This record gives sequence, C-alpha cells and structure tokens, in this order.
Amino acid sequence: MNAQQLFDQIRSKRSFLCIGLDSDIAKIPELLLAKHDPVFEFNKAIIDATAEYVVAYKPNLAFYEHRGAAGWNTLYKTVSYIKKNHPNIFTIADAKRGDIANTAKMYADAFFKTFNFDAITLSPYMGHDTVEPFLRHNSKWAILLALTSNSSYDDFQTIKNADTGKYLYEEVITKSIHWGTENNMMFVVGATRSDLLVNVRKLVPDHFLLVPGVGEQGGSLSEVAKHGLNSKCGLLVNSARAIIYADRSMRFAGAAKTAAMILQKEMEQILKEAGLL
Amino acid sequence: MNAQQLFDQIRSKRSFLCIGLDSDIAKIPELLLAKHDPVFEFNKAIIDATAEYVVAYKPNLAFYEHRGAAGWNTLYKTVSYIKKNHPNIFTIADAKRGDIANTAKMYADAFFKTFNFDAITLSPYMGHDTVEPFLRHNSKWAILLALTSNSSYDDFQTIKNADTGKYLYEEVITKSIHWGTENNMMFVVGATRSDLLVNVRKLVPDHFLLVPGVGEQGGSLSEVAKHGLNSKCGLLVNSARAIIYADRSMRFAGAAKTAAMILQKEMEQILKEAGLL
Repeated sequence: MNAQQLFDQIRSKRSFLCIGLDSDIAKIPELLLAKHDPVFEFNKAIIDATAEYVVAYKPNLAFYEHRGAAGWNTLYKTVSYIKKNHPNIFTIADAKRGDIANTAKMYADAFFKTFNFDAITLSPYMGHDTVEPFLRHNSKWAILLALTSNSSYDDFQTIKNADTGKYLYEEVITKSIHWGTENNMMFVVGATRSDLLVNVRKLVPDHFLLVPGVGEQGGSLSEVAKHGLNSKCGLLVNSARAIIYADRSMRFAGAAKTAAMILQKEMEQILKEAGLL
Repeated sequence: MNAQQLFDQIRSKRSFLCIGLDSDIAKIPELLLAKHDPVFEFNKAIIDATAEYVVAYKPNLAFYEHRGAAGWNTLYKTVSYIKKNHPNIFTIADAKRGDIANTAKMYADAFFKTFNFDAITLSPYMGHDTVEPFLRHNSKWAILLALTSNSSYDDFQTIKNADTGKYLYEEVITKSIHWGTENNMMFVVGATRSDLLVNVRKLVPDHFLLVPGVGEQGGSLSEVAKHGLNSKCGLLVNSARAIIYADRSMRFAGAAKTAAMILQKEMEQILKEAGLL
C-alpha cells in the first residue's frame, strides 16, 4: 500500500482511525477464557464489529509476547484474519524494534514476510542501520518514533543539539526523511502535545503521522486534526483501550463498535470540513 | 543475581565472556534441519560445548521472531535449558525493547516471568517510563543502550546537548543511573570505540557494561579490558558469530568450544594481570 492508496481508503471509509489491539488476557471478558484461544476470539469479535469504521489495526507486541509462543500464535492468527477478511485494512506491528543491520533484516523478514504486516514501528536510537533493511521491502512501511506521548518523553527527545539548534526529535525527523519516502516512512507523534505537532508538520508537510494518545492519554482529536491534517489527510489516529475495553462484559464488541463509530463520525466531519471528502 | 554474585561467577569461571546465541536457521549445519527443532538442537550443542567458559548467554530476539511462534518456542526451550543445566549462568534477552509504562510492564513480565531471563536490553529513546517497570523485578537487570557498535551510531548518539555540553549517550547514562542501581542496571557500550569507553567508564565507574562488537565488528578485547575493567571486572564481553559459526559443518560444537576457550584464556590472563583472580 502506498500513501495514495492509504488516502483512498481513508476517503472510502470516511475515517482515519487506527484501533490498537492491545488485548490483555487479564482484561477480556471472563467468559471468553473457556475458548481455545481467548485473545484471538476477542480480537476477532473486535475486528468484525469495527472493521467498517477503521483504516488500520495496530497490535502492540507486548500484549502478545507476554504469553510467549502462544501469544505469537494469537498474533499470527489475528493478522491473518485481518488480511483475509479485510485486505484493504492497513496493519501495523507496534513493535518499536531497533537493532543493527543484519539483525534488523531478520526483524524486517519476521514482520513483513512471516507475519505480512504492512508496517512496523521502530526506535531511532541506533540510527540509519536500524531502519534501512525495512525500507527494502516493497509496499511496506517503517514508522519511526519521533515525539512520543508518554510522560518521560522529554528525558531525551527534547534535548537541543548544540550544533544545529534542533531538538532530538527534530533531528530524527530531518535526518531520517532522506532514508525513505512519503510512501514508506511515517512518524509517531504523540497527540498530547498539539503545539509540537505544528512544528512536526512544518518539518514533514507530506508524510503520514501515526498519532497515539487520543482517548486515555488525554489527546484531543480536533486539536490533532487542526494541526496535523494535510492534503492527503496525513494522519492515522490510534485509540486502543477506549474502544476495545469500552465495555468489559460480553457486550464488549457492540460497545467497541459504538465507540469506533463515534470517532469515525467525528473524523468524517473533520475530513468534510477540510474538503477532503 | 546481583553484581557481587556476577563477579563471583566471573572469578569462578575465570571469564567474562557472553555468547550471543544469534542462531539463524539458514546458517546452521544442514544435517540438523532433519531434527524436530533444529535451532534448539544447535543451541543445546553450543551451550553444552561452551558452558564451562562463559558467564552469560545472550539470544538476540530477531533470530527467534523471524520464525514467528515456532521461534519463540525455541527461545523458551533454550532459556529453560540454560536455567536447568547451568543455573549460575546469566541470561540476557537482547530485545532492545522500549515502550511506555503499562506496555513496558507487559514486556517486563514477558521476559522476566514467562521466560525467566535475568536481564533484557532496552532502548532509552522514550525515557524513564520505559525502564522503570523492569527495575521493579527483584534480582533482574535492565541493560540500557548507551553507545552502540554499529556504523550509524553517530546519527543521534553523539548529538551534543546545547544546555549541558553532554553527548546524547552521556545524557542517557547520567540521567538513567538515578533510576536504578549497580545491581539492576548495566549499559551497552560498543567495543569498536575504546576511546569513548574511557569516557563511559568515568561516568559509571562501578556499573557493569555489556560490550558487543568484539570479533566480527572489529573490537579488540585487550583494548576493551584496558579501558573498561573495574574492581569487580565490570564487563561482560559478547561474541556471537565468531563462536557459534566458528565451523559451519557438524563439527560446529567442537569449534565453538575451542573459540570460546581461546577467549576465556585471554580473559583469564587479563583478570590475573588486573589482580582480580
């Protein structure tokens, strides 16, 4: 999938919603635990209920690795289920990997070939070597951490470079945009700081941004849209817990559907007002 | 295991060698491929052949994730095999994870509880949130990337902070040493730049350092020892390919044993000369 195709999906769905499948076996309805693969059953129900409102799903690997090999099997089944039943939905492995060249190549093969994800999140700390092997895969995406939404983001990301006057997250963006293109690189930018989003948009007017932090983490969708939209939308906004745990009973799927629909309607309005529909 | 216990192991083994179990199914002897779990058979043979010469094993996760759930199963069996047969050998998940608090907690449970690793490597980009959940586990270690041994290490790690005059890797070290102690935190410092190792040792005179890059990546053991040793050794030096692929035939285990023994002898000499034995 390239940027234009992703934008086509956004227009078709009237949505730029990504759902975080951060499915914790300790938080899913107890009745599901009798099933052979409870987390897969949970994911399947969430996907079936919400697919019409989303353009992307983003499982965070931690929730699968927590259960070892069994969790990885659930992850594989989940991605395969999405690809089979909703082939136009973009899939992101929220893995935040970052390792050197030959190892990065193994990670790229794991997520793009073994699992057939469309995209993976990566940590920039070790530089170009850690990203380049992912960019060799056609129609796949590397999504680089730039400015995150957690409370300790400013431990290192806002260190100012004495030579260039740029913050570290700006250095990450301005250096890495030369590694790939708008068709194979995105950046993670937290929704909780829309002032900084303005700054990021200046650095990468044309790239897609993956924005977590709307919902529980306190980010506002309208603020994100105001500062982040570009001529091809250019935003994937993620929500996880507010959707997948909207109801903790066996009515979870219906509640997730409603929560996703509400966000989709809000996004449709935003896209209309921006003249993108 | 705390730092004193690790030092006791180093003295007992007369070695500070860590072997990287970066076992690639495409590189192991073809005859093993007929076995039910070829990579586990390979690892088991390497472990049996080298255990007397090492204080730590460090599987890099990429090589296991590459094969999806099956790879994670191999990893689980490998760590269990080490724990059962060599309970005093330190195990490091070279995972380079880095995610926010609730997700980091899931990763910590995955690697410290599900897998029972002693330590995990972490990426510092997202700050304190990403490390703290790992430090809540007793007798477990967080090993933070500081200065890596890959060619693009200087894309970001040597950016100089305009406010403090420190390089990013120095900021990572000086800020994070307050998050944990010498008994639950180490730092990754590449062996290919021993001049910078001098600088790191000044910042953390008492911490253990995990040093990759000796062997294929061009680092010199004697240089690393000269600049990195402290009164409790304070070094784990990793070698992977030079040992596990010392011979690509079915004589691989014997060749790995010889390669490990040669490094151990060199380390014994270094420890003696430093008055640590």
